[in-house]
Amino acid sequence: MSAWRHPAAIADASISFEFVKETALKAEAGKLDFLFVADGLYINEKSIPHFLNRFEPLTVLSALASVTTNLGLVGTLSTSYSEPFTVARQFASLDHLSKGRAGWNVVTSPLEGSAKNFSREKHPEHALRYRIADEYLDVVKGLWDSWEEDAFIRDKASGQFFDPNKLHTLDHRGDFFQVAGPLNISRTPQGRPIVFQAGASDDGKKLAAHHADAIFTHHETLEEAQHFYRDVKGQLKNHGRKDDDLKIFQGVSVIVGKDADDVENQYQTTAALVSINDALNYLGRYFEHHDFSQYPLDEPFPDIGDLGQNSFRSTTDEIKRNAQTRNLTLRQVALEAASPRPRFSGTAQQVADGLQQWFESYGADGFIIQGGTPDTFPRFVDEVVPVLQARGLFRKEYPGTTLRESLGLANPVNQFS
Amino acid sequence: MSAWRHPAAIADASISFEFVKETALKAEAGKLDFLFVADGLYINEKSIPHFLNRFEPLTVLSALASVTTNLGLVGTLSTSYSEPFTVARQFASLDHLSKGRAGWNVVTSPLEGSAKNFSREKHPEHALRYRIADEYLDVVKGLWDSWEEDAFIRDKASGQFFDPNKLHTLDHRGDFFQVAGPLNISRTPQGRPIVFQAGASDDGKKLAAHHADAIFTHHETLEEAQHFYRDVKGQLKNHGRKDDDLKIFQGVSVIVGKDADDVENQYQTTAALVSINDALNYLGRYFEHHDFSQYPLDEPFPDIGDLGQNSFRSTTDEIKRNAQTRNLTLRQVALEAASPRPRFSGTAQQVADGLQQWFESYGADGFIIQGGTPDTFPRFVDEVVPVLQARGLFRKEYPGTTLRESLGLANPVNQFS
Ligand SMILES: Cc1cc2nc3c(=O)[nH]c(=O)nc-3n(C[C@H](O)[C@H](O)[C@H](O)COP(=O)(O)O)c2cc1C
Ligand SMILES: Cc1cc2nc3c(=O)[nH]c(=O)nc-3n(C[C@H](O)[C@H](O)[C@H](O)COP(=O)(O)O)c2cc1C
Repeated sequence: MSAWRHPAAIADASISFEFVKETALKAEAGKLDFLFVADGLYINEKSIPHFLNRFEPLTVLSALASVTTNLGLVGTLSTSYSEPFTVARQFASLDHLSKGRAGWNVVTSPLEGSAKNFSREKHPEHALRYRIADEYLDVVKGLWDSWEEDAFIRDKASGQFFDPNKLHTLDHRGDFFQVAGPLNISRTPQGRPIVFQAGASDDGKKLAAHHADAIFTHHETLEEAQHFYRDVKGQLKNHGRKDDDLKIFQGVSVIVGKDADDVENQYQTTAALVSINDALNYLGRYFEHHDFSQYPLDEPFPDIGDLGQNSFRSTTDEIKRNAQTRNLTLRQVALEAASPRPRFSGTAQQVADGLQQWFESYGADGFIIQGGTPDTFPRFVDEVVPVLQARGLFRKEYPGTTLRESLGLANPVNQFS
Repeated sequence: MSAWRHPAAIADASISFEFVKETALKAEAGKLDFLFVADGLYINEKSIPHFLNRFEPLTVLSALASVTTNLGLVGTLSTSYSEPFTVARQFASLDHLSKGRAGWNVVTSPLEGSAKNFSREKHPEHALRYRIADEYLDVVKGLWDSWEEDAFIRDKASGQFFDPNKLHTLDHRGDFFQVAGPLNISRTPQGRPIVFQAGASDDGKKLAAHHADAIFTHHETLEEAQHFYRDVKGQLKNHGRKDDDLKIFQGVSVIVGKDADDVENQYQTTAALVSINDALNYLGRYFEHHDFSQYPLDEPFPDIGDLGQNSFRSTTDEIKRNAQTRNLTLRQVALEAASPRPRFSGTAQQVADGLQQWFESYGADGFIIQGGTPDTFPRFVDEVVPVLQARGLFRKEYPGTTLRESLGLANPVNQFS
């Protein structure tokens, strides 16, 4: 929330391509799978500062495509406020430009205000958003299969440019979309771009089990992570899929320090930057920009009824549950939300221990390192990655050039061939 | 239409980033203003080969942003099948990524089939498309003015990230769009991206006079070009604008050769690649993919009534007028359309003469060099540009780093400040 105020922070990082590029090159130096770009479609005066002014995901990932070589490029885009033909094209184009490194994080947009930016009367409710997303993904995958891999012959002598038997017109007619196709771009280097999913409600998990190659999720404890992991993997068979077909990534924050004092010092320096007002705004955003300043700060977290069900459902459920179980005040809830203690902190060995435990006990197939100050991520790459490599838990070289190869996923079969 | 069959052609050029990048770097070496990417939203089996499989404009231009430094990056995007909030964001993001080199070529989509890719009953008719486009541009320009240039303070000590007086919420409510804003990206290096317009019908010219910084157009003769030039510039005062506020670019094809024989030889080599079937398909695309193979080839161009009015109106009007005036057969019309003689051809001096004449007699403010074989454009840069530079007609260095500076246009004033 307020990390931009840290003395070491680049205050305009969210709109600095130099910063983004440097981060991407660092990730690539560490042989990481991908860079992940979050997104949102509504802001107001109380929004998180770096959300007010940030690059649009597809454009910034495309700019990175030409200055990186192995790093996966994953961007968030909402199925509630976009057109499948355009989105299928743009991610396919990114996959071609990057030679097989594109990924799409499918979200349904949690913020109600988004509707007002897209000429809509109201934000579609949670269940409807997921029904739309499910059909949307059918359409996009159908469009990505418009051309078989070897459809383009380009025989200069005969003048035959493509084989018409390898061109497939989708003619989709569903509840929400009617899309004829074909797509005006060929099958991509990865067969199709990688599909991420980031909603953790029941509907979100169902969508992931049906359509996703990977999940971006977030859990406080190993037990919760394991429960989620078993739950989602267990649903794969409903769609004729195997456990390995879907990779689960836990989003985690880390602090790497010399010792416990250094770690605590790093945490306190950042936490001290968050004013209680900022923290209330941060919390409010999850609950449809609810104004929490109307409640007493040092009394139990207020009863706000169903608020949050139609936005970040899985996150708001968790906040309410946590407040009740641990009997927290509003001030405590807000400060914990806006400045959470990192999931894994300590020396490089200790951080590696934590990741290893979650990985080996089926809490995660991998991790997304989030947040921190400008030092946090380079330090993770320089200090923790070598420990994981030495333990044989992480690669020393990329297995290939595509994101799909990095994730250990097979190229999909064209549904029409 | 069939240039991909040329012995020197890169048959997969439309999906080769190497080719695009090389072209961009060549353009930059020649100090050209911009690279221009056309686009379309519908294909079928009869489409122009390189339209079947091409990059999406915003992604490929973003990929170029990080490997070029001075070249403007202009991409085509339709106002009939997109959302202003998303388009405003994506072009603003490209403008930030390129540090002020983004341009948007506004089109309304000529192809009726586009509707079937975007869940629409029918393609909006010509006049309606332009009414939508006009309101669309009001919205996008309003969103681009969401933040004043100095809105972001980022004062780490006080915690103030922005000045709320410099944030403007649009709250647009019109006939076609209701868009609240603000946009979640700051004012761009060019104030706002450059707006091109590429329709030449009366409605198209009106839209350009109201909203555009530049026009991409196409005329056969100097007289027609002069007429268009006077017409459009004359309409600027209706919107309180001056002649210099809108730059008119003529799209031209060129052949540069050693002498007349070499030029003719180059032309014939390319023309011979076009089969009459390909030529009929090429022609048909302008007329809503009409099947011209049903008519006798060597009789006068058939009477096809109003066909074409709702697609490429200005182009189809011109084809019909030309066929009638010159009493051409269908074969002649199709072959001329699919393999037109280049507007300017000859030695480098002769090509420069032609451009100079059009420029100095108010036929154009500049030119867009189109088509040809892989040699055509590099040869133009290597041979014609130096002649124009020697004559004092073209720059030897970029005047700055933004496209707006290259075009000699002033940064726009924020409508809210
Ligand atoms: C870990 C995680 C990351 C998310 N990232 C984004 C994001 O970048 N942009 C977005 O609009 N929504 C994001 N979401 C929101 C969800 O995708 C979804 O739109 C919303 O939370 C409702 O889904 P749920 O109730 O299934 O969690 C994220 C959710 C989770 C759990
Ligand atoms: C020189 C020129 C270039 C054009 N380029 C495109 C293009 O790249 N993509 C597109 O969809 N339409 C393009 N158009 C079509 C127009 O923008 C417009 O959608 C259509 O022709 C109807 O407009 P008009 O009747 O005003 O010319 C172009 C038109 C002209 C005259």
